[in-house]
This record gives sequence, C-alpha cells and structure tokens, in this order.
Amino acid sequence: MIIVLRPDATQADIDHILERAQKLGLKPHISKGTKRTIVGLIGPEDVLRTVPLEVFPGVENVIPVLAPYKLVSREFQKESSQIAVTDRVKIGGKKIILIAGPCAIESEERLLEIAEKVRSAGACVLRGGAFKPRTSPYAFQGLGEEGLKILKRVSLKLDMPTVTEVMDPRDVERVARCADILQIGARNMQNFNLLKEVGQTKKPVLLKRGLSSTIKEWLMSAEYVVAEGNPNVILCERGIRTFETATRNTFDVGAIPVAKRLSHLPVVADPSHASGKWQYVPALAKAAVAAGADGLIIETHTRPEEALSDGAQSLLPERLTELMQELRKIAQAVGREI
Amino acid sequence: MIIVLRPDATQADIDHILERAQKLGLKPHISKGTKRTIVGLIGPEDVLRTVPLEVFPGVENVIPVLAPYKLVSREFQKESSQIAVTDRVKIGGKKIILIAGPCAIESEERLLEIAEKVRSAGACVLRGGAFKPRTSPYAFQGLGEEGLKILKRVSLKLDMPTVTEVMDPRDVERVARCADILQIGARNMQNFNLLKEVGQTKKPVLLKRGLSSTIKEWLMSAEYVVAEGNPNVILCERGIRTFETATRNTFDVGAIPVAKRLSHLPVVADPSHASGKWQYVPALAKAAVAAGADGLIIETHTRPEEALSDGAQSLLPERLTELMQELRKIAQAVGREI
Amino acid sequence: MIIVLRPDATQADIDHILERAQKLGLKPHISKGTKRTIVGLIGPEDVLRTVPLEVFPGVENVIPVLAPYKLVSREFQKESSQIAVTDRVKIGGKKIILIAGPCAIESEERLLEIAEKVRSAGACVLRGGAFKPRTSPYAFQGLGEEGLKILKRVSLKLDMPTVTEVMDPRDVERVARCADILQIGARNMQNFNLLKEVGQTKKPVLLKRGLSSTIKEWLMSAEYVVAEGNPNVILCERGIRTFETATRNTFDVGAIPVAKRLSHLPVVADPSHASGKWQYVPALAKAAVAAGADGLIIETHTRPEEALSDGAQSLLPERLTELMQELRKIAQAVGREI
Amino acid sequence: MIIVLRPDATQADIDHILERAQKLGLKPHISKGTKRTIVGLIGPEDVLRTVPLEVFPGVENVIPVLAPYKLVSREFQKESSQIAVTDRVKIGGKKIILIAGPCAIESEERLLEIAEKVRSAGACVLRGGAFKPRTSPYAFQGLGEEGLKILKRVSLKLDMPTVTEVMDPRDVERVARCADILQIGARNMQNFNLLKEVGQTKKPVLLKRGLSSTIKEWLMSAEYVVAEGNPNVILCERGIRTFETATRNTFDVGAIPVAKRLSHLPVVADPSHASGKWQYVPALAKAAVAAGADGLIIETHTRPEEALSDGAQSLLPERLTELMQELRKIAQAVGREI
Repeated sequence: MIIVLRPDATQADIDHILERAQKLGLKPHISKGTKRTIVGLIGPEDVLRTVPLEVFPGVENVIPVLAPYKLVSREFQKESSQIAVTDRVKIGGKKIILIAGPCAIESEERLLEIAEKVRSAGACVLRGGAFKPRTSPYAFQGLGEEGLKILKRVSLKLDMPTVTEVMDPRDVERVARCADILQIGARNMQNFNLLKEVGQTKKPVLLKRGLSSTIKEWLMSAEYVVAEGNPNVILCERGIRTFETATRNTFDVGAIPVAKRLSHLPVVADPSHASGKWQYVPALAKAAVAAGADGLIIETHTRPEEALSDGAQSLLPERLTELMQELRKIAQAVGREI
Repeated sequence: MIIVLRPDATQADIDHILERAQKLGLKPHISKGTKRTIVGLIGPEDVLRTVPLEVFPGVENVIPVLAPYKLVSREFQKESSQIAVTDRVKIGGKKIILIAGPCAIESEERLLEIAEKVRSAGACVLRGGAFKPRTSPYAFQGLGEEGLKILKRVSLKLDMPTVTEVMDPRDVERVARCADILQIGARNMQNFNLLKEVGQTKKPVLLKRGLSSTIKEWLMSAEYVVAEGNPNVILCERGIRTFETATRNTFDVGAIPVAKRLSHLPVVADPSHASGKWQYVPALAKAAVAAGADGLIIETHTRPEEALSDGAQSLLPERLTELMQELRKIAQAVGREI
Repeated sequence: MIIVLRPDATQADIDHILERAQKLGLKPHISKGTKRTIVGLIGPEDVLRTVPLEVFPGVENVIPVLAPYKLVSREFQKESSQIAVTDRVKIGGKKIILIAGPCAIESEERLLEIAEKVRSAGACVLRGGAFKPRTSPYAFQGLGEEGLKILKRVSLKLDMPTVTEVMDPRDVERVARCADILQIGARNMQNFNLLKEVGQTKKPVLLKRGLSSTIKEWLMSAEYVVAEGNPNVILCERGIRTFETATRNTFDVGAIPVAKRLSHLPVVADPSHASGKWQYVPALAKAAVAAGADGLIIETHTRPEEALSDGAQSLLPERLTELMQELRKIAQAVGREI
Repeated sequence: MIIVLRPDATQADIDHILERAQKLGLKPHISKGTKRTIVGLIGPEDVLRTVPLEVFPGVENVIPVLAPYKLVSREFQKESSQIAVTDRVKIGGKKIILIAGPCAIESEERLLEIAEKVRSAGACVLRGGAFKPRTSPYAFQGLGEEGLKILKRVSLKLDMPTVTEVMDPRDVERVARCADILQIGARNMQNFNLLKEVGQTKKPVLLKRGLSSTIKEWLMSAEYVVAEGNPNVILCERGIRTFETATRNTFDVGAIPVAKRLSHLPVVADPSHASGKWQYVPALAKAAVAAGADGLIIETHTRPEEALSDGAQSLLPERLTELMQELRKIAQAVGREI
C-alpha cells in the first residue's frame, strides 16, 4: 500500500498515519521527494484495505500494490487448473470443450432433438436454461423445476453432462442434483450470497463475467466461491457493455489472455451473448479459440424462429457443424484440440 | 413493432412474416420504399417481443415502438406517485426527503450517535447496512441479524424510520420486520427473484440503478416489483460505470429528469456512491436537488477514519448541516422544500 | 514514480533499473516487502515518463505519482483564474456567464433575431457556428467564411462578444479576427496541432471535453494551449459517451467540482449537447450552476423546426428567459450571481 | 424514416408533419395503432435528416431506417474492395498483410535495423511515426519532417512500402510524397477537414477507429474520404475505450465481422494499441486473423527499453517471427494466407 501525501501535509499528519500503521502491524517506509512525500506500508494489505486512509489528514491518494485476490491467482498456483465435469470431460486441459444447446429448455422433445444434433457436431456438454433471468417480468421465465427434470432426463438418455443457470440461493441444491455445472449468470456475478451458496457445493461453477465488471472484480467473485471451499470455478467471458450497439455486447477477447495470466482458472467464451446475432457467432468463436479459450458455450437451436428466448443469437446445428471444422484447424494451430 | 426488410427480401419472405403476424392477432401495414420495404405490426407488442423476428428470412432489423414497461410509466399514471414511508414521511411530494446515516451499522452506540446527529441536520430517514455486498470475500460483510436488531432499536428510540439493504430473497421477511424501506442495491437491480420477493411485501422499496443499467432496464426492474403487487417503488440514481476514474462512478444527473418524465415514481439521488469521495458529495447533492430529485441519501459518519466501510465517501455531520443550508435555498429556487 | 517488481525479480533486474534511474538523475528508494519489492524513484517524473519501465525485466507494474499537468494545476496556481473576454465580460469570477445562440449561423437576419432575444434573456456572449463538424459528409457543414462575417457584423451591431468553433489550424487566424472566444470542439480536444495553433493567439479558448476523454486528458489538452503561451483557457463539460442512450450524452456533472479542484481554470457547462433534447436542458443547466459551474452555453433558436443543425436540443428564447429566473435563485443559493 | 407520435398527438399535429413531408417530396404512410400513430416517410432520407422532426408538436420519437453511409456500404458494392498499396501489395484479398515497425521513427539506423527484421519476419509494409499525437505537450512529439525523410530513404533502400500518420491538413501533401499509406489516427477519426484533405489525394488511407466511435461513425468517416474522390480506404480496429483498465483499450474483435458485413472496405487490426502490453499482442493478433481481419499492424522494436514511444506494447522481432508461424496456420484454417 502506497500513500501519496498532499504537498501541504504536516509532520503531525505523517505521525498520525504512522501511528495507525504500527497499530496494524505494518512497517512504514517514508520517501521525501521534491514535491511529495510518499509512505509505503509493508505487510498484509488486507488489514489496510479496511482502513479508509483517504480520509486521514494530509493524504492525497492511496495506491494498493498487491492484487486483492489470492486463491484464484496464478501466483498462488502456477499450474493451470483442470476442472473435472465428469470422468471424461475436463475443462482447462489441451482439449477445448464445446458446450452447446438452446438458451431455454422449451420441451423434452425439443431439448432431445437439439442435444442429439449438438453432440453430433462435437459438443461434450449440453446447455439449457430452466430459470431464465429476463429484463421484462412479462417475458418467458423458463420452465423452472419442470425444466430441471427434463434436463436431467435428456442428460441421462444421452449420457451427456449439462450446465444450467441457478439464480436463487434457495435453488442451488435442487439445481445441483440435476446438472453437472452450475452457471452463475452475468447479472448475478456479484450476487455474493449466491456465490457463497455454490461455493458450498463441490460442483463445477461456470462464472460469467458481469456486464460491466472489471477482470479484477470477476476474479474477486471467483475468490468468493473458492474461499468457500469449492475450487472448481470456470470463468466465462460473454461480452461487456460499451457504447457500441451494433452487437448486443462487446466481446472482450483480450480478457481471455489477461485472465489466464492473472489466474490459474480455465476461461471459456460465450460468443452467442457477446454478439447477440448468430451471424457473428462463428467469427467470435474462432477468435476466442485463437486467443487461448479453454472452451466455448454456443447457443444452438433447431428452429430459431420458434425459440422462446434468444432466437436471434442461436446457431442452427448444421452451422455449428461447419464451424467446428474451422475450429479444429485453429485449435491445432495454437497447439490444442477441440 | 416495425420490421425493416433486406433489399433482397422476396414476396415469400413477406408472406411468411405476415402469416406469423396474423396468427398472433396483429394487423400488418406494408410500406414499399424505393430502397426498403417496411412492415409495421399493430397490436400488443408483448406477444411480438417473444418472437425472434430477426431470424426470419429477409429481415434486416426489428424496431420496437412502445416502451416495454407499463405500470410504472407516466403514460399509465399521469400524477406523480407519493410513497408513504410513515404517516409523516412521504417521498415524491413537495418536500425533498433527506436519508442519512453510516454505510454499515458498526455498533449500537455508534449508530445512535450518528442517527442523532443526522436527525438534527434535517434527515427524516436513517440509513445503515446490516448486510453489505462487498467485492472481496475478505472485507467486512456487515453485522447481519445483529445489525438489523440494532437498527430497529435505534429506530424506535429516535422514532425515525429506516432503510437498509436486503441482498437475499431468504432475508426479505426479517429485514421487512426491522426496517421501513427495503433497499435493493445496484448489484442486485437485476436479481429478479429478489425483486419478486420484495414485490410481495407492501414495504417501500428503494431501487438503486445498476452500475451499467440503462434507464429503461431500471424501469423494467421497477416493473417487476410493481407487477408483483407492490406499487411503492422509489428509484435511486447512484452513478453509473464509465471510463472516468476521477470519481468512483459517474453521477448521471440527467437520469433524474428522464426517469421522472418516463415514470410516475419518485427519484432520489445518492451522491456518496456516485462520487466515492466526500469532497464531491456537496456539489452532487446540490446538483441533484436542482435537477428535480425527490430525495437524497447521504452517507454520514462521526468518525470516518474508523468507518468499517466507505469511510472515504462519508460526510461529517457538521458538513451535512452546512450542506443543508444551501440545499434549502436551492430547493426553494425550484419550488420545493427540504 | 513507483515501480512494483514481480515476485521473481532478481537482484540483477533491480540493479538494471537503478542504473537507468541514476543516469536520469533520479534518487531511488527500495522497499522490500514480504511479497513484493517496490522501487520509488524521486525526482522529475517527466524524464521517467518517456522511459518504458514496464518492459524492463522483473517489472510488474509502474505507477506514476504526480499529476502530468503543471501550468493548469491548482497546485501551480492557488487562485482561480478569471478569463477576460472583454473589459466587462469575465469568466471565472462571482458572476456566472450565460453564452447562448444557435448551433449554426444560418443567415444574418436569423442570427440577429436570436441574438437580440438571448441578450434580453441575460446572455453576455453570443454563440453560433460557421464551421460545423458533422458526422455525415452530406449534412450542412456551416456557412464557413460567410458565417464568420455575419457573426462579426451581428457582434458589432449588438456590442456582444461571440464564441465560434475553429476546426482547422489554417482557420485560426481568420476566426480569431471575427470572434472573441475560440471554441475547440469535443472531437478536436486531442487535435494537438490545432491546440498549439490557438495557443499561439492570446484569445480566450473554450475547450470542450472530448466524448471519451478523462478529466486528466482534458487538463493535458488545456496544458497544450497554456504551454504554448496562451493562459486563457475555459474548460467546458458537455457530456461524455456511455452506454446510456436516453440522452445524447451523459452529462458528467461531477466533472465540474473535480476539474475545479484539480485546476485553477474556469469551467462552463453545455447542457444542450449533454442532453441532446431541449426538454432536459433546464434540469441540466440548473444542476450545473448548483454544482459550481462558472458559465453555461445553451443552444437557443427562435424556430427550432427550421434549424439546420441540432434543432432538437435548441431552447426557445422564452424558455431560456424562464430558466434564467430559476438560475438566478440557484446562483444566489451557492453564493454566485448570473 | 419512421415517426412515432405521442398518444396525445392531434390531427393538426399530423397534418403539420405531412405538410412538411410533402414539401420535401416524401410519400407518407400512416398507421394508427391502438396506442400510437406512426408515420412512415418514404423517399430520400437525406433530406429528412436535416429536418429536426423531434421538435414538431406531437412527435415522440424519430427512427431512421436506412444506413447513413452509401459509397462505403456493402449494399452499394457487393464485392470486397482490394486496395493496391503497390503493384505487389494489395490489402483486402486472400493474402493477409502484415504491417510492422516502430511506433516512432527515432533515427535512420534504428529504423533500418527494425525494418530489416520485420521484413524477414514477413512484414510487407513498414510502419513508423514522424508526427506523434501525444497526450502530453512535454512528451516526444516525433522527428517531423526529418522523420519523413528517414522513412522515405529506408523505404527506397529496402523497396518496402510504408505507412505513417498525418495529423494536420497542412502536412498531407508532404506526407503523401514520402509514404505509401496515409494513416489517420484514432484521435483524428472525426477531424473532418483532415479527412477531406486525404480524400483529395489518391493515396491509400488507413483509417483508425476512434476511441469511442461507433462502427457507424467509423463508416461515416470513411464516407468522407470516399465522397471526396478517394476510394482507397482501409479500416483499422485498434480497441475502444471502456471501463476495463487491465488493457490499454478493449479490442473489439466483433467489429471486424460487423464492418466487413456492412462495408466492402478491408479491415485491419492493431493489437498493439488495443492491448497496450506486448504480452497480449500475440493473442489479439491471432484472434483478429481468426475473425477475418485483412491485415495486422504490429508495433515492433529491437530495443523496447529505449523506445521513445510505446515501448511497453512493442514486440521484439524474434517474437514477431514466432507469432507469424502460428498466424500462418490460423490464416490457412480460415481459407487465407499471410
């Protein structure tokens, strides 16, 4: 922690800061420059973060030096984590994992139809929402409990692991019984009670980045889950909100190498929500793989015109199959496979 | 709903759209321009919103015409709503309401000390957090249940209504027993299950705008609460996230007149979170009142250096008292009182 | 300048940095923490800014300590600057200055008609564009040279100083002959050659903040003008670009107190461009005055329906007159006049 | 153009709009819905854009239907443009073009040294700045005229075409004599006089996207150049400004497929400015090629520690060589070569 003092800071101001620092067990270093005095405080920054040093007299600015996340950091664990979804499906290794399926579960027949197609295309994990966070209270909110049961049955029938969103701490247990990966949606990235709740299961958690969350905040949310005892977090970049409206969100492809450099957790990409239009999904999917993503989650629907949610961004299974051809070559180009 | 067709759209494409529109009970209007054909669909837009018209062949663009919110709209109710917190305290009338208090409840003595001071300064409602949403799992998370009890006791002792945040649907009932206004924090603005839960109480709800939420999305979240049967929603502008880092957030003062024009709900402003620095709180508070805010929520602390949360943005009670002098004159200038 | 080293930085890395620092005449301070070593470099930061310390082996992060602007900083000059436009009109004193007029100069009759009305309403300076920066090459680009002449004649006729935009370094001289204040538009805030050119006149410069410029960059652009020898810079907050689309831009009212704290230059506000809709102009104008603005620049037109540019955000003169009534009271409330 | 009326619009309001529309030679279509009346105006939208319909009584909202750009649109020209830099180097064909070199020209020896290395690595075009737009007036501003001469000599010596930035309309002619491609920097994307000036040459123009410019505005700036008679515009995505600070800008990889769908112009990517850190340049370069970029512009320096500008984002030539190995495979995967 570095404290930059105001040019008019007095010795009494400095003493006041030092006194507090010493009480907290920190070792101060004072550098007097020509224009500014700077106090460096050495020791555990955590105790300092809780002290509002900015309001101390004479203080102009407080600059933290250490990253606030620990358990999820690359510094804490040098080797990349591999998250085991099932015995055969692991996320974070050489193989890039394709997760595909409809936005929402609409019926058992439809989900089965889509699941079979995406499996043929190369998907290892089936996605499908039972609880849908919708901007409007009047929009389709998902089939709920019934959707979970459908998901479980299709999963068993095809022997295919699944991922589905959990929105409410009260639902964590029953969602965990029906799905293999618990998805925390972008709008819930800082729903801290929900994070703690999924942290108490051992289920893999797919943690979507919030619409306006920095990479640092995203890692702090992952830290919430891991600190609770569940190390199985998969980060998911799904586009951030910017001024640009040509795409639904702005896909921050740079977040993939940044997150993988700062953290040992795997990072998957969601080109469907990032673009909001199926036409752009292939380009973003390819970019994600080229940039080092450990997986892709792609909305797929056999009849987009009839989809109850996000039809505009759903790929037809035949387009997914075509896309996989190109993805295989790109994966190989960067020393991976898909 | 207006559908702009691609220049190469065929008659079959148009017929396909019209067929679907008619099934939904909508009346189509076709305008053939020199470059584009446009189809206007007249009737309830809600049924249309669920149909992904963008994926229909020949469609270039779909433009909604009506606002997606209803019950909270100014069109639905012309007169501004007044939300009664107690018999004497109403938000949305001529009187601008000051809500003040510490960020977090730290102890009964401290809360009482602060509450007495802010009441003297002119505050009608006491704020104080028992459950604190913190970016870091290692930061002070609030006193929880114990904090709620302290809040209730101080409220009774001073006969002063209170507002406190509820973060978890499971806590709504007990928070509602201890506080007079339920606060939904910025990070939970789209926690739809929580919105539904507070919508089932009759308690006033202070709905903070999300960090990166549009005004339209904010009103849709209010619609969630009202649609559930609770019309007592108070909107709260608290700054949005932008590229600027000189302030913690960017206070969108323009959101006040916009929200009040689009909706009949009262709008209060939170200059403390908007700026993140107590030095800028007075300027933003004055701007908010001048722009038409119905209330202010200001973090106040008697010993900011010892505050367990947000000390840097907390005003000393004596500064709040000074600020109120100026606010009274500005309120008068715009035909209000405070 | 503070250099945070990587945990694996070697002594050789440190020596390499110290060697370069000493060559530059800087005094290093080394603090070895439990997790990180930090090197503070004391001396003129300017010489350091040009050295890409981030690429030195072992360096994780480089943190500047001093503000990069000097001449425009409050530290350099404690007293607020007053910019004299004419003998009677000064910007930055107790009196808040109203600048009003049409977006573009359309004809002499129209400009005269509008100028008389805004003068009656209380405007001290007339605005009007001869050169218009337009997103589309097919939009009205302003009357150019002819517009400047009209502006000059109306200015002389009414004895009213004027402000107009200059977009091209080649036009600075002739614009300076016809207008009293040279406006640098938001899109040209970082047109550094243009800044240098207006820096070589002694004319007051109205420097609009760029659409996505931080306050720091805005002050650096002012520094360009002042460093060239022209201290007469007036800052103008006119809204920044964010994700919100309900208003044309997001008016960053907080930038007013921030800029006034960091710099001694006066700050005026442009509620017309900030909102993009005349309906919101009064609220933003009032907010700006309450927050401490030294002036307002408001687009006004007698016949908005016929305006060749920005009609939607132009106020009718009668509305401006009404607004001034309220502004007078708010100015008084904050110890100013208008 | 579609005009949505307010619910309280009168017949007189409608007649007033129709009267104006007819004067402009437009054909109106009126649709009366249950809640709103909508007027569609058919004909050239350009004449309409200049009329501020929003201020007409009874109007709630005006929605343009056609894209405002013409000459640069994919609709205007179906086939992708190929821009010939020299007889052998064309941008926009099957071959992806690598542009590389230092940020700034520092000396002839250094430029030559770097140029030879990047040519060996596979670069077809040499980049190097003579005029540098710098946020601070105290930073290195480039060698100017002398830099141009150095660039020309190195270009001739190695028979390698070059690109360099032009910042001032007065410099266009001399820059055009020394370089093969004129670069318009991000800060000048809406410097309309500069755009017109380069539009009057026939030289290829590399048009960088502005920090906060929408894709639509970017295409409008390209339209300025093309409308002036110069069809040789190359678009360049270089990252946009968002709230994220882990990278210097946010690389909007989605802008590549969007711009290529809306326009026939080639699109190159600048991963150096997008990331601001050499560590992330390879990932972004690979993402760009995978997403369909027609070229890359990469800052390269043999001694980043001594670079006078942007050292932190400069790649060493040996890293560029390594990167090209991977890029070749990715290019092939998407049916291209590099």
